[in-house]
Amino acid sequence: MIDLAHKDFMFITIEGIEGSGKTTQIDAIAGWLAGCGHEVLTTREPGGTAIGGQIRSVLLHPDNTGMAPVAELLLYVADRAQHLETVVRPALAAGKVVVCDRFFDATLVYQGYARGLDRALIRQLHRLACGNLQPALTLLLDLDPEAGLTRAWQRIHSDDAHARESRFEKETLAFHQRVRSGYLDLARREPERFTVIDAVQDPPSVTRQIEAALAAHFSR
Amino acid sequence: MIDLAHKDFMFITIEGIEGSGKTTQIDAIAGWLAGCGHEVLTTREPGGTAIGGQIRSVLLHPDNTGMAPVAELLLYVADRAQHLETVVRPALAAGKVVVCDRFFDATLVYQGYARGLDRALIRQLHRLACGNLQPALTLLLDLDPEAGLTRAWQRIHSDDAHARESRFEKETLAFHQRVRSGYLDLARREPERFTVIDAVQDPPSVTRQIEAALAAHFSR
Repeated sequence: MIDLAHKDFMFITIEGIEGSGKTTQIDAIAGWLAGCGHEVLTTREPGGTAIGGQIRSVLLHPDNTGMAPVAELLLYVADRAQHLETVVRPALAAGKVVVCDRFFDATLVYQGYARGLDRALIRQLHRLACGNLQPALTLLLDLDPEAGLTRAWQRIHSDDAHARESRFEKETLAFHQRVRSGYLDLARREPERFTVIDAVQDPPSVTRQIEAALAAHFSR
Repeated sequence: MIDLAHKDFMFITIEGIEGSGKTTQIDAIAGWLAGCGHEVLTTREPGGTAIGGQIRSVLLHPDNTGMAPVAELLLYVADRAQHLETVVRPALAAGKVVVCDRFFDATLVYQGYARGLDRALIRQLHRLACGNLQPALTLLLDLDPEAGLTRAWQRIHSDDAHARESRFEKETLAFHQRVRSGYLDLARREPERFTVIDAVQDPPSVTRQIEAALAAHFSR
């Protein structure tokens, strides 16, 4: 399924359910990489470009509950096409390490495993629109969705601006459980790319696990 | 290329360059059809749904000049997937005639013929996301882009709200000439579906040509 020739050693993604702590950890990742002398670009999907920010608003707006699953998929892939062409590929070409908060795995998991869209269709659409670029290392922050959603809700209630970005946080617990098990299934299928991080622990312990994974990756 | 089995007799589209008079004529079409006793739904792409309206804003915003052609294509197809699922298919299932201002031909022409994206890629993406539904009658309002753009610019300068929707109207004349010749090429390839209307004439004459095409279609 995965074309090894298109994995980029300098392209790292971080994945996980809502509230798994990706935003906190991505700064630690960037710091560790910079400390090793790498030039680093941290970015995210959806929304890593100006146009992507507008697409992100459509995707996450809590009023857009009537969105057709295929339309949702296409919006994610549109965001990704823009992001790859204008941000990710140029940074990789300039020799930077690119650390991206969510990428293709998130689409497979949220739209495929959780939403029920055909995963072969998702792979075909992604490949047609975005080509074959794959991260060489994917850090999966894994924890029970009940714990993650509690964190996410605390964040929402402490931050009104964030409250508007909650269409996915309004999904049922069962939805988020499908997301988690989808991620773990992908990790089982591609153990050489995924490192599963126990994200139940306190943030410094999570950071230490991530740094060990980065050290292993860059010593290859 | 076209699968005749999926053409819906009650699905009619109207196509043409900017300023070709589609908006004016669509009311006349709806009136003619209602006069024949049909229930009619008029709609448009992009923007025929609430979510589509938000996608339309991203697509047409004049600041979004850095949009990657594939991202643009995916946004159009996302709008269409939402529109087909929530508006077009339900109306056809309810026995209505659906008259749509722009459909798949516009994507082929603007993103393919004019923007230069591979037309086979466009067809594949469209089919994956939207299936095989085809209009049985497509009315192409044809005129020279110089005349059309003059009309479109007059509309912009008389309507500030419309001025914001002008990313395509800022394209070069050569771009709009490729759009026109793309439409005419599609019409030559599928003469049984397309009726080319001379849109240089005054609006009542254009309406008479359209009514003749509708009468021929519904007498089949």
